[in-house]
Amino acid sequence: MSQSLGKASIAPEKPVYILNSASVVGTKEGQGPLGLLFDKVGEDDMFGCATWEEAESTLQKEAVGLALEKAGIEKEEVSFLFAGDLLGQSIATSFGISVYQIPLLGVYGACSTCGESLLLGAMSIAGGFADRVLCVTSSHFASAEKEFRFPLEYGNQRPLSASWTVTGSAAFVLGGEETVHGTKKNGRGGPRARITGMTVGKIVDYGLKDSMNMGACMAPAAASTLEQHFIDFGSCPDSYDKIITGDLGKVGQRVLIDLMKEKGYDISGRHIDCGIEIYDGESQDTHAGGSGCGCSAVTFSAYILKQLEERNWKKVLFLPTGALLSKTSFNEGKSVPGIAHCIVAESL
Amino acid sequence: MSQSLGKASIAPEKPVYILNSASVVGTKEGQGPLGLLFDKVGEDDMFGCATWEEAESTLQKEAVGLALEKAGIEKEEVSFLFAGDLLGQSIATSFGISVYQIPLLGVYGACSTCGESLLLGAMSIAGGFADRVLCVTSSHFASAEKEFRFPLEYGNQRPLSASWTVTGSAAFVLGGEETVHGTKKNGRGGPRARITGMTVGKIVDYGLKDSMNMGACMAPAAASTLEQHFIDFGSCPDSYDKIITGDLGKVGQRVLIDLMKEKGYDISGRHIDCGIEIYDGESQDTHAGGSGCGCSAVTFSAYILKQLEERNWKKVLFLPTGALLSKTSFNEGKSVPGIAHCIVAESL
Repeated sequence: MSQSLGKASIAPEKPVYILNSASVVGTKEGQGPLGLLFDKVGEDDMFGCATWEEAESTLQKEAVGLALEKAGIEKEEVSFLFAGDLLGQSIATSFGISVYQIPLLGVYGACSTCGESLLLGAMSIAGGFADRVLCVTSSHFASAEKEFRFPLEYGNQRPLSASWTVTGSAAFVLGGEETVHGTKKNGRGGPRARITGMTVGKIVDYGLKDSMNMGACMAPAAASTLEQHFIDFGSCPDSYDKIITGDLGKVGQRVLIDLMKEKGYDISGRHIDCGIEIYDGESQDTHAGGSGCGCSAVTFSAYILKQLEERNWKKVLFLPTGALLSKTSFNEGKSVPGIAHCIVAESL
Repeated sequence: MSQSLGKASIAPEKPVYILNSASVVGTKEGQGPLGLLFDKVGEDDMFGCATWEEAESTLQKEAVGLALEKAGIEKEEVSFLFAGDLLGQSIATSFGISVYQIPLLGVYGACSTCGESLLLGAMSIAGGFADRVLCVTSSHFASAEKEFRFPLEYGNQRPLSASWTVTGSAAFVLGGEETVHGTKKNGRGGPRARITGMTVGKIVDYGLKDSMNMGACMAPAAASTLEQHFIDFGSCPDSYDKIITGDLGKVGQRVLIDLMKEKGYDISGRHIDCGIEIYDGESQDTHAGGSGCGCSAVTFSAYILKQLEERNWKKVLFLPTGALLSKTSFNEGKSVPGIAHCIVAESL
């Protein structure tokens, strides 16, 4: 059996279903263009907690709880939980999902973590290692600003190239064919989509150092994974209804479209970016767009899967993008390398 | 096909081989009881770099390079790299292994990360998703002290329950049956061992808050995974020549043996701990023992796999342990939850 494809891709032989999913977001995301689509919008961004980090943990906890509920399954029916976030040592995860006592595999790919968790989750289903897995990622505007840039109290100005970290978390329940049919439990909407391919990205470092322009830092990685994906699958931009990056924002989008043109691919008519979709940049003062582990996750759950369910789109390429910096690497003058992982999601 | 076993375990149907591996350590580790077994001992702990973080990145880079060389393969023959470290946003990895341009899946499980990377790597081989993968993890005493406790310059005193973060990195090349035989390239020692089982751990939090006694914080997680493993595989302590934790140290070892006794298992005659093996606690002033992502990794590569190769041991249970804290969670008064993942390694 070989499910590997080309240099960096996987084409699962057994179908992998997104059985259900849930998204929980903060107030600003609730006021944005996708606001009505999220499963839960918090009353304020503390979510009843004493610290921003606890608030982010609560986002993960609630997203997992809602996803289990929507899928109509108990936590004991989930074999593995693939989870991660942006905080040092992934503490939003460690203190968020331990209540469920599901065997945990922690993942880290900066803001691409949602893609990585879905990719590994799909692998574990397609390989026959698990019947059902959960994938969850999160970010929080305030915990991320504290972790990477300036404390909110400092009130620093942000250039127009800066992005706004999304306060949100989404969780996805994946399963194989045998988990889809015939159980009365699966009464709340059945599978939302199928995952039919994955491409693992590599680190791409153009030497950019501006953590206030992460779109430009990540675009080369998105272009690298996208090109590899087209080669491995023998596909082209026209093979997909949409090509959806995680959080390149407006600056990164322009860079990606240009880079892909240089490689001979025109994605301009099909590219959308979760970071651009989630806020109204004009009225919400979010500058280049949304970012963070939560940005691509909640947009995928609330908006993209809905389009696939309604068959407005039949096949999309979902490509969360990540910037591999830390405050230490930034302070030591290092560059901001990027990484991007992609999955192919298809309507049923 | 089902390769899942019990509640949290995997029994791969296709054999997974550790084709080769390499370890690179700092001066203190080179002076310890396992010193002569490591593939490379640095002249000093800066490894020619300007910062501790860069030094740790260099450890990973050199371990991967040596592992590829010992396995007699080119980096292009490796499908995926599973990698991680202890630093915020895993920067030792991001700036260490990008030169190889191997598709990267970042993992985080604190000091259990070596176990998690081997587990996911073995899964990707057994599932037919890759022919060969690399797994690499690292830690560095100075970058870890800076990340989690006090800057070295502060010269703080350490209680006897504290552990000493190992400066080291080990990389493992995994492959399936078809990668073992018949290629002239595989001339430098062939496979070292087989991976025949894995158990994924969950977060266990006894509410302990002492980051200077991480052995006690992690021991409950080790006990939880160990018990689950015995149940899932229908095995017992006597099924293994050795049961080897990652970095519980002397305090954690006592706690684990006691906890397992309460659960009805006597592991006292078979338990060893990488953190206890790697230093001479008396002469090297390392208190409870070694710790860190690098501790279990270099001990597994240099010492444990050697025992399996020489058939002194036939079957071992390798159980790296992790403490899920960050300086933020510590400063906010949170507990130190633990996690532990295990793999079964057998001689050929």
